Amino acid sequence: MVRLNKHNRAQYENHIIEVLKQGDKDAFRESFLELHPTDQADIFVKLEGKMRKRVYEYVTPEEFAEVFQGLEVEEQKQTVQEADKKYLYEVFNNMYADDVADFLGEVQENKALEILTSMDQEEADDVKELLSYEDETAGAIMTKEFISIASMDRASDVIQRLRQEGPDAETVYYLYVADERNKLVGVVSLRDLIVADPGEIVENIMSTRVVSVTANTDQEEVAKLIRKYDFLAAPVVTNDGVLVGIVTVDDVMDVLEDEATEDIGEITAAKGATDVNISSFTAAKRRSPWIILLMFFGMITAGVIGQFEETLESIVLLAAFIPLIMDSAGNTGTQSLAVMVRSLATGSFEKKGLAHTIKREFGTGLMLGLICAAVLMVIVPIIYPGQLMLGFIVAVSIFLTLSIATIIGAVVPVAINKLKLDPAIASGPFITTVNDILGLLIYFSIATALLQYL
Amino acid sequence: MVRLNKHNRAQYENHIIEVLKQGDKDAFRESFLELHPTDQADIFVKLEGKMRKRVYEYVTPEEFAEVFQGLEVEEQKQTVQEADKKYLYEVFNNMYADDVADFLGEVQENKALEILTSMDQEEADDVKELLSYEDETAGAIMTKEFISIASMDRASDVIQRLRQEGPDAETVYYLYVADERNKLVGVVSLRDLIVADPGEIVENIMSTRVVSVTANTDQEEVAKLIRKYDFLAAPVVTNDGVLVGIVTVDDVMDVLEDEATEDIGEITAAKGATDVNISSFTAAKRRSPWIILLMFFGMITAGVIGQFEETLESIVLLAAFIPLIMDSAGNTGTQSLAVMVRSLATGSFEKKGLAHTIKREFGTGLMLGLICAAVLMVIVPIIYPGQLMLGFIVAVSIFLTLSIATIIGAVVPVAINKLKLDPAIASGPFITTVNDILGLLIYFSIATALLQYL
Repeated sequence: MVRLNKHNRAQYENHIIEVLKQGDKDAFRESFLELHPTDQADIFVKLEGKMRKRVYEYVTPEEFAEVFQGLEVEEQKQTVQEADKKYLYEVFNNMYADDVADFLGEVQENKALEILTSMDQEEADDVKELLSYEDETAGAIMTKEFISIASMDRASDVIQRLRQEGPDAETVYYLYVADERNKLVGVVSLRDLIVADPGEIVENIMSTRVVSVTANTDQEEVAKLIRKYDFLAAPVVTNDGVLVGIVTVDDVMDVLEDEATEDIGEITAAKGATDVNISSFTAAKRRSPWIILLMFFGMITAGVIGQFEETLESIVLLAAFIPLIMDSAGNTGTQSLAVMVRSLATGSFEKKGLAHTIKREFGTGLMLGLICAAVLMVIVPIIYPGQLMLGFIVAVSIFLTLSIATIIGAVVPVAINKLKLDPAIASGPFITTVNDILGLLIYFSIATALLQYL
Repeated sequence: MVRLNKHNRAQYENHIIEVLKQGDKDAFRESFLELHPTDQADIFVKLEGKMRKRVYEYVTPEEFAEVFQGLEVEEQKQTVQEADKKYLYEVFNNMYADDVADFLGEVQENKALEILTSMDQEEADDVKELLSYEDETAGAIMTKEFISIASMDRASDVIQRLRQEGPDAETVYYLYVADERNKLVGVVSLRDLIVADPGEIVENIMSTRVVSVTANTDQEEVAKLIRKYDFLAAPVVTNDGVLVGIVTVDDVMDVLEDEATEDIGEITAAKGATDVNISSFTAAKRRSPWIILLMFFGMITAGVIGQFEETLESIVLLAAFIPLIMDSAGNTGTQSLAVMVRSLATGSFEKKGLAHTIKREFGTGLMLGLICAAVLMVIVPIIYPGQLMLGFIVAVSIFLTLSIATIIGAVVPVAINKLKLDPAIASGPFITTVNDILGLLIYFSIATALLQYL
C-alpha cells in the first residue's frame, strides 16, 4: 500500500488517471481502492464526464458509496444525473443514513421521494426519520448507525458482537446501553470493555452518568458539550429517554466550522454568502439585499446630516471629520460585538455572568473615549491651525460616541440572543450603522450648540 | 452513580459543597469522585480558599490531577499558590505531559524550572520536549501518552497490553506501529484489531497509508487534516519519520475554536482582545492601539476631504452622502474579506483556484455597484427634490467604489497570506479605511469635475 503525501500525491493521481484512461480496470481498482475515501473523492472530482462514467463501471456501488459521501453537493448532483439508476440506489443503500439525508435535503422534493422509495425499507426509514428533524439540531446531524447493548451482556459477548457489527457502525468506541424499552441507561467505552474481565457483565462496568442531548437540541449546544467533555460522541434521546441516534465528533468539527463561518457572516453582513463555490451572479444576488438595506440606513444618515445644513455652511470643515467619527464609533462597536459573539459561541459567559461583561465593556469604552479625545484635542489644531474649537467639538464627540458605541456593540447581540430573534440583526454593519447615526447626531448637535459662542 | 444535567446539577453541587463544609470526607469523596472531571472542575472553581484547601486534603494528588487539567490558567496558578509543594508535584506527575507543558508555558521561567526539577525524570523530559516546540505547532499541542506497537505483535498480545497500558494513554483507539528505530510504519485502529483474528500479526492488518504531520507543522494544518479525513488522532513524526507524539481530536476542536476567534479578531481589529476574562483596563490597553491607529487613518481621510473645501462650499449637501459612500464601500469590502478569510481557513481555495475566486469577486462587485447606482439615481432626487446632478454624482461614485472595494477586500488578505505577512494588516477596519479613502476621492473628484457644468 502507498502513503499519500504532498510529495507523491501528484504522481500517484496521474498514475490512477492514466490507467483509467487506458481502460485498465484491474490496475485502476488496485490503485484507487487502496486510497482513503477522502483522497478517492479528491481524485474523482478531477475527472471529466466520460472518465467519471468509467469509474461507475469499474467500482461497485458499495465501494462508490464511500466516494460519494466525500463529494460536495454539486458534485453529488452531477453523479446522480450521470449514473445508472440501479447503480445509484445501491450507492444510497450503502451510505450512512445521515449522509443520504444531507443529500436529499439539497435536492427537489420529487427527486428525494423517488430515491427514498427505491431504497431498502429499513434504510429509507432511517433517512426519513433524520429528514423529519429541524435543520441544525442534534436530530438532523446524528447518525443511526450506532451500537446499543444490554446491561446484562458480558464483556466478551459484546466484543464478539463487535466483530460482526463493527464494520457497519459509525463508531465502535462508545457503546450505549439501553433497557428493554430502548431507554438509555448507561455507556461503556471500548477502552473500559477491553480493560474489564471478559466475564464481567456490562452493568458493572458501565457509567450511568451519561450526558445526552435530545433530538431538538441545537447543534451548537451539542458541539459545546462534546468539546467541553472531550467526548468522541454524544447519544441523542427522545423526551422519554429513548435512544434514537448518536452525534460523532467528526460531525461536531464540521458544526464548529459552520458556526464560525456563520458568526463571521453575521459580523460582516455576508451571511449565507461566504461560499466560494457559487457564481458572481449568485453571490451578488445573496449579498445585495444586505448592501441595499444598509444603503437605506445610509440615506437616513444623509437625512440627519441634511438637517444640519446651516451648521455645515458655517464650518464646512466639520464635514472633514465625519469619517473619523463614524469609523471610530464603528470600530469600537465592532470590537465589542466580536467579544460578545465569541463569548456566546464558546460559552465563556456562563462563568463570568452577563452583567459583569457588559460593565466591563462600558468601562473599556470610557477609557477608549478618553484616550482618543486627548489625542484629538492635540492633533486637530496641528492639522488645521487655529481650529481650537473644531478640535474641542471633535474630542467631546468622540468621547461620548465611543462610550455609547461599546455598550451598543455589547448589549445588542446579547439581547438578540436572549429574545431568540434572528441574530443577523445584530450583525456588525447594523451596529455600525446605529453607532454612525448616534455619533453624527452627537457631533452635529455639539457643533450647533457651540456655534453661537464662535 | 448519578447523571448530571440541567435539572439536577444545582442540587447535586449544593450537596457536595454542603458535605465539604461539614468536613464529611467520605461523603464528599463519594459524591465528588463519581463526577466527570469537567464537572469536578466546574464545582471546584466555585469554592472559597478555605474549602479549596480542604479538597487538597480529601482527594489524592492522582485524583486531583484530573481536576487540575480542567481548570483555566488563572485558577491553576491559584492552586499552585495554595497547595502543599509535595502534593503539587504529585499532581504534576500524574497529569498528561501536554497539560503540564501548557501550564508551564504560562508561568514565570524560574517557577517552571522549579516544578520541572521536582518532577519524575521521565515525565519531566516529556514536558521539556513539548516546551521546546514553537507555539501553535503540532509539537506544541501533541501528547506523549500514546501507544506504539510492533508489526510482528499478534492482535491478542496487543489487546492484552492495552489492558495494562490503556488507562494511562490519551487514546487507545489508534495504535501506531513503529519499527526498531522508532520510525512510524503503520497504524491499526482498535476496531480493526477487534475484528481481526486474535492470532493475526499486526503487519497483516495495519494500514501503511498513514497520514502524518511533522512536529513543526502549523496547528491549523493539523486541524484541517484531522477534519478532512475524520480522524480521531494524527501521528507526529520528526523529519526522519520517528514517531514522537500524537495530536488528538479533542485538542483539534480547541484549535478550530481558537483559529475562528483569531479570524474574527482580525476582521474586527480586536485581535488578542476578544477574551472576556480580562479587566476593562486590560481590554482598553489591548484594543486602544487599533482604535488610535485607525483614528490616524481617519485623519488622512479628514485631510482628503479638506482638499475639497471649495467643492464642499459650493454644494454643502455633498457632505450628507459621505457616510453612505463610506459605509457601502466598507460593507462590500468586508463581505469580500469574509469570503476570503473563510476560504483560506477551510481550504476551499485549493479546489477552485485563486484567480477564479478573485474574478468571481470582481464580477460580484460590478453587479452590486450597478444595482446600488440604479437605486440611488431614483431615490436621491426624491429625498432632495431637484438635486438630479447630486443623484448622478452619488450614483456614478457608488458604482466605481463598489467595483474597486470588492477587489481590495478579496486581494489584500490573499496577498498578505502569500507574502506571509502578519494577516492583521488585512483586517476589516484597514480594508474599510482604504476603501473609505478611495471612495471619497472618487466621490469628490467626480463632484469637482462636474461642478463646472452646473
